[in-house]
Amino acid sequence: MIHILIDCFGGDHSPKANVDGALMALDKLPDLYVILTGDEATLQNALKGKAYDAARLEIVHAPEVIGCDERPIDVIRLKKESSMIKAVRLLRDRDDLNAMVSTGSTGALVAAALTRIGRVKGVIRPAFCPILPTMDGGLVGICDSGANVEVTPEHLRQFAIMASLYMEQVYGIATPRVALLNVGKEAEKGDEIRQKAYILLSETPEINFVGNMESRDLLSGRYDVVVCDGFSGNVLVKTTEGTALELLKKLKKDIYSRGIYKLGALLMKRMFAEEKAFMNYQNYGGSVLLGTSKTVVKGHGSSKAVAVEKCIEQAYRMEVSALSSKMEEIIMRYEHYEY
Amino acid sequence: MIHILIDCFGGDHSPKANVDGALMALDKLPDLYVILTGDEATLQNALKGKAYDAARLEIVHAPEVIGCDERPIDVIRLKKESSMIKAVRLLRDRDDLNAMVSTGSTGALVAAALTRIGRVKGVIRPAFCPILPTMDGGLVGICDSGANVEVTPEHLRQFAIMASLYMEQVYGIATPRVALLNVGKEAEKGDEIRQKAYILLSETPEINFVGNMESRDLLSGRYDVVVCDGFSGNVLVKTTEGTALELLKKLKKDIYSRGIYKLGALLMKRMFAEEKAFMNYQNYGGSVLLGTSKTVVKGHGSSKAVAVEKCIEQAYRMEVSALSSKMEEIIMRYEHYEY
Repeated sequence: MIHILIDCFGGDHSPKANVDGALMALDKLPDLYVILTGDEATLQNALKGKAYDAARLEIVHAPEVIGCDERPIDVIRLKKESSMIKAVRLLRDRDDLNAMVSTGSTGALVAAALTRIGRVKGVIRPAFCPILPTMDGGLVGICDSGANVEVTPEHLRQFAIMASLYMEQVYGIATPRVALLNVGKEAEKGDEIRQKAYILLSETPEINFVGNMESRDLLSGRYDVVVCDGFSGNVLVKTTEGTALELLKKLKKDIYSRGIYKLGALLMKRMFAEEKAFMNYQNYGGSVLLGTSKTVVKGHGSSKAVAVEKCIEQAYRMEVSALSSKMEEIIMRYEHYEY
Repeated sequence: MIHILIDCFGGDHSPKANVDGALMALDKLPDLYVILTGDEATLQNALKGKAYDAARLEIVHAPEVIGCDERPIDVIRLKKESSMIKAVRLLRDRDDLNAMVSTGSTGALVAAALTRIGRVKGVIRPAFCPILPTMDGGLVGICDSGANVEVTPEHLRQFAIMASLYMEQVYGIATPRVALLNVGKEAEKGDEIRQKAYILLSETPEINFVGNMESRDLLSGRYDVVVCDGFSGNVLVKTTEGTALELLKKLKKDIYSRGIYKLGALLMKRMFAEEKAFMNYQNYGGSVLLGTSKTVVKGHGSSKAVAVEKCIEQAYRMEVSALSSKMEEIIMRYEHYEY
């Protein structure tokens, strides 16, 4: 039985989306057991009248609410009875629990997971790995994307190993093509960290390193994993999402500016709906924290039930594929490099 | 008279676009004098039959050709008789020359300019500043975007001062809103460099610092200048361009997949042409190097005559507005911070 904690608050559609997503996952995965955290009465209410296997569902009462503008550090210290921090603490303390899923604040979740949950043996720094859809219908994982604003070449190698295993085990991509984010293709581009990382990655036969990637090629479909420091990874992911959203918004505004455009758009209605779904990043599952001893999946704040269900499946597949022990096995081969 | 060198080779449409752009600028700006560099016979040929004021145009023969894959360092050392390096050397050596425009390799141009042309007094590091269109019809300058992969907080302040003056003097934006690229809005976000830069920028009354910007807000129209290290600035600009281009490509492909979509798109033909022009970054002029003692403008490699003309106007306006001396004046107030 795989035990997964679901933080039921903090998302735009919480707790309904989180509860419904959990029930969908229970229905789909017969050996899944879910623990919902949050205000018990509210959760009982959300479950009322729904059909589900009660023997595989448990509620843990967590009455505190996290405000929008609270700093991660304050959340961890002061909101121990919030649905998120309660879930993190249970994950840390109970050996029978495998993973957690949250749609709450990324900053608080990453900080809480990094400080409260242990690391896979050999892992220097866990890293955050969102995925984006590529233009050929594939996916690309970006690691790190916010957990570590400063990195060393050895961190980057570990990110490459972890993300490569993740894309392979969870998304079924055989020998993922791993690239290093840089300002040019040539090996000598970038700062010293990038130059050294290029060499380290080339000397790591466990990954399929294909060289430097320039950011304009992120969505080209030529890469399965992009390795970067958390600062530029954050810029890479947020700029992609921001540009796509702003362009769609502009398109919509322009369509409404003239009758003939509205008519044209009517004929293309299905296509535009498909483009919108394509660019809706919650359709691709959540972002995972790689390298923590237990699995943590962060769903988009705007996640609806289907997206929450996808995050639960993601966590489930990470556990079933024993990702952590595979990571440990490879990372420990390079342990002599540590520090 | 403003004397501007035009490197006539190295672009996708060179030398025709460069020569025609120069003639358009001559026509528009009565006190402009242009010096074209490149193979003399080819340039004479490109000028044949054209009407222009021959008293304000000069050709300097530069027969060597720069290959696509040549490393910047080799270009500077070995291709002294190429149209680009010849122009850089003339700019350095001749006091009567004010500026240069090139559509050749960015890497070679930036490296040549940084090593061969002096800096404005007080400037620690010149920075590269491309501009992007925002969704409300405005523009945003991104500084630095590739000249310096590593920076200090003091560099970032200088970038802010230089880019702010540039947007004000060349694009007529009153008190440009300056933001610091970061992974979150709060002052304490990012690494030590960002945290210190936040404080320095807040303490610089000559600029209108409005706080941190997350990369997803780049095109929102809420900022006129974004200050960043050259690595993440490069990621920011290239990701925006890459995402926009990939999305347009996908849209086009999807339109051609069904007859009804093609029909719809036909009704929206003018709108799509406008979107395409909006996202065509060569319509917004070139990227300038800020902080060099003489003006260097880099046009897109794909520049046609109109885009080259825009770059020449940009260089012209920078000279006419005496940007360098205004920069020097403000930067020297903070000179005691240097190193």
